Amino acid sequence: MILNKRPVIKVLMAVMALVGAAMLIPAVVALIYKETNVFLSFIVCAVPMIAVGLIVIKVLPPGDNNTLKMRDGFFIVAMAWTGMSALGALPFVISGAIPHFIDAFFETASGFSTTGSTIVGNIEALPYGILFWRSFTHWLGGMGVLVLTIAILPMLGIGGAKIMRAETTGPTMDKISGTINDSARKLYTIYIGVTVVEIIFLMFGGLNFFEASTHTFGTVGTGGLSTHSESIAAFGSVYVEMVIAVFMLMAGINFNLYHYLFTGKPGIMLKDPEFRTYLGIIFGSTAFISLMLLVKNIYGSVGQALRYAFFQVVSIITTTGYGTADFDTWPIPCRMLIFLLMIVGGCASSTGGGAKVIRIMLTFKLIRRGAQTRLHSSAVRPIKLGGKNVDEDTLSNVKSFMILYLMTMLIGTVIVSLDGYDLVTSLSAVVATVSNIGPGFNLIGPSCNFILFSYPIKLLLSMFMIAGRLELYTIYIMFTRVFWKGNK
Amino acid sequence: MILNKRPVIKVLMAVMALVGAAMLIPAVVALIYKETNVFLSFIVCAVPMIAVGLIVIKVLPPGDNNTLKMRDGFFIVAMAWTGMSALGALPFVISGAIPHFIDAFFETASGFSTTGSTIVGNIEALPYGILFWRSFTHWLGGMGVLVLTIAILPMLGIGGAKIMRAETTGPTMDKISGTINDSARKLYTIYIGVTVVEIIFLMFGGLNFFEASTHTFGTVGTGGLSTHSESIAAFGSVYVEMVIAVFMLMAGINFNLYHYLFTGKPGIMLKDPEFRTYLGIIFGSTAFISLMLLVKNIYGSVGQALRYAFFQVVSIITTTGYGTADFDTWPIPCRMLIFLLMIVGGCASSTGGGAKVIRIMLTFKLIRRGAQTRLHSSAVRPIKLGGKNVDEDTLSNVKSFMILYLMTMLIGTVIVSLDGYDLVTSLSAVVATVSNIGPGFNLIGPSCNFILFSYPIKLLLSMFMIAGRLELYTIYIMFTRVFWKGNK
Repeated sequence: MILNKRPVIKVLMAVMALVGAAMLIPAVVALIYKETNVFLSFIVCAVPMIAVGLIVIKVLPPGDNNTLKMRDGFFIVAMAWTGMSALGALPFVISGAIPHFIDAFFETASGFSTTGSTIVGNIEALPYGILFWRSFTHWLGGMGVLVLTIAILPMLGIGGAKIMRAETTGPTMDKISGTINDSARKLYTIYIGVTVVEIIFLMFGGLNFFEASTHTFGTVGTGGLSTHSESIAAFGSVYVEMVIAVFMLMAGINFNLYHYLFTGKPGIMLKDPEFRTYLGIIFGSTAFISLMLLVKNIYGSVGQALRYAFFQVVSIITTTGYGTADFDTWPIPCRMLIFLLMIVGGCASSTGGGAKVIRIMLTFKLIRRGAQTRLHSSAVRPIKLGGKNVDEDTLSNVKSFMILYLMTMLIGTVIVSLDGYDLVTSLSAVVATVSNIGPGFNLIGPSCNFILFSYPIKLLLSMFMIAGRLELYTIYIMFTRVFWKGNK
Repeated sequence: MILNKRPVIKVLMAVMALVGAAMLIPAVVALIYKETNVFLSFIVCAVPMIAVGLIVIKVLPPGDNNTLKMRDGFFIVAMAWTGMSALGALPFVISGAIPHFIDAFFETASGFSTTGSTIVGNIEALPYGILFWRSFTHWLGGMGVLVLTIAILPMLGIGGAKIMRAETTGPTMDKISGTINDSARKLYTIYIGVTVVEIIFLMFGGLNFFEASTHTFGTVGTGGLSTHSESIAAFGSVYVEMVIAVFMLMAGINFNLYHYLFTGKPGIMLKDPEFRTYLGIIFGSTAFISLMLLVKNIYGSVGQALRYAFFQVVSIITTTGYGTADFDTWPIPCRMLIFLLMIVGGCASSTGGGAKVIRIMLTFKLIRRGAQTRLHSSAVRPIKLGGKNVDEDTLSNVKSFMILYLMTMLIGTVIVSLDGYDLVTSLSAVVATVSNIGPGFNLIGPSCNFILFSYPIKLLLSMFMIAGRLELYTIYIMFTRVFWKGNK
């Protein structure tokens, strides 16, 4: 037997029960807004999910071996995210909000993967309960339902260390504290704290609790699904835009750094090379784009240019995808820079997607070292980051990731182009999904949506979103022979 | 002193004298066609180049140390290709055929790098001598003027082994025979032999010697500049198209394999994994594109669809760039496949450009191994190619190259987009030049040319052509601090 079936099933059942429990919250929202049909749609899904989940966990006898191996960890993560998206799609279908299952799957995968691409045209026509669920999946996905389940796993008598490996976003995961449960709990506390603070800030700006919470979910999870077709532009408020921009920026930072910040070691945060580069890219790009916008006279004043440039830059580099302006109408060099920011993404161990800033930094260092090696083939010099040597295994993984990431884009674009749309649309659909951004360019630009693709392509893009969220290998590994072969 | 100046100058002077000598051939062509002005333009360049070159070599006293180091080798190769393109551009400017120097530099870099991108709109209006020179640069570039100079270097008392390293296209260079001069002479003989045979075949098809030779230069060098605006379509002959297609296909094969073929060991060629993959890609792509063309009813018969698909596929994968049909009007999936073929390129140690088939093969194997490593982190398994283990240094170089190649495209596209043309035009301009193909898509498609770009961008694209021809690092290394620092 390749997988250690019993503990794997138990974990997946726990995830299912949790998603079911999470559905009770939008059910309450539906009740408040007197949407009986929507309320029932959630209940009809939630109750069996919770019941079956808990019963199976209870009834299934413990196996001889309750430890999870690497293989089991990968399987759990891949299945959990796919399963969550499939089950989470049911209320959309049952309530009639999104009648076709694949459309609903796309929307839910977009939610849980914190992508923010949508197939919904007239968003305002959706019921409140549905809109809330859509945004709530961002929040759940943001920090990873699986990071949450790490707190549950010990109750099942299963250690979660192996899952963490497949789950964490970024090449390195500094252990904040000795045990994995501790660090999960700390990340979790920070995440909830940030959420509460942003909701309060947004309510100060005049948003009601529903709007404040849904947009907070999309911000801290770097998701990007909004309850308005016009996204954040709908509020027309500089204050709201800046609050959301700052919280997006925060969500794109390595969450481990907050731990140091809150435990009185801000120096570690301020000296972090990835953090500094991240800020540098944001401010540099904002400056460049503002300047271009002013030169081309797109916005009247420096203030306006900065306002729109900053929001869009932060939204894209953090892979959130909220919008206050249609960057697809900006001058070509601005669009190209935005395209590059899409590929860069947020910092490691943040809720952002993309390649991650640290991988891009290491890639440039690797290229420079390549030049050195060609001159002095004798000695391979270590690559340093923040004064410390980066070990060669990490570098090798960075190279593999970058190649896989770029190859996914190239080959993905060819497949998506089978739908017959232009190159820019096809390419940006792949980048927007693999990097968990949301909007792309042309036919899927900020003012458009993904409804135009055929169902097979929507399914592929949904899998790209999940694969991108799980750093590609977690999903791709399922399709290798090695994974299903042998017992080692 | 960082560079070993005396031998470096001598080699570069030898290259200059050789380029000068090469100009005497188009001068003769100009004479035959009674183009006095063109004849004088060539003589006015050739005579001083030959004279200065020979005099400096003769006069410069030998230094204490005549061995070339790695650093010198890189410098010579980078300077030689840039210098050849600059000097080779002079007859275009002096004759008035291409008045602006940067345009002429672009055209010559395109020639020597065997790219085939052109800034000339009305090609038929150019004099014969100029057209001949344009094509002849392909032939010289094809096998590398520097591979030729390897036969000259010993006369200067300088060993050429170091240059070979910077020059050879592809990750591995099987030594055909013990000494470098021997293998250079063998490659050289094969190259000339193939050239003569193709000229004869084309003349059988009714082409005169001028047309047969210029198009042969473009074929065996995988260049692609034609003497007709319509490229190969101008001949309207299936026979000519097939001769050129077969010779392009041959030029894209590792030339070392021909040595085995001609010395009675065809088995080595037939079993070569890169060769087999190369053929597989060509036939697979031809089948896919023909099918699409038939389904979409672009050509009336299976024969016509195969004819146009095969020619275009071979022309693109070998990075030649000759055309018999405007692939930019084909269905999107065909265009996307052609885009991928552009990135793949020919085999290592062929005259083709691109990433090279072997690198793409190794990249896929690396991705697969990445999946294995993530499951069983203990053991790194060797990657095999044709039954032999590929050493880790080669693999590391492949990864570095692929990242550098793809990053060049991304960042290059952003810079080129500053000219304000659409994404497809900008991206394909970079791919077409870095991969030494010739035509791109949209505004620079097969029926268009590169005149539209600004001079700074034309200069950048020229450098991309040279950098692409020299496998990127050779040029990029000139811009690193390491190169100019220290004496080691």
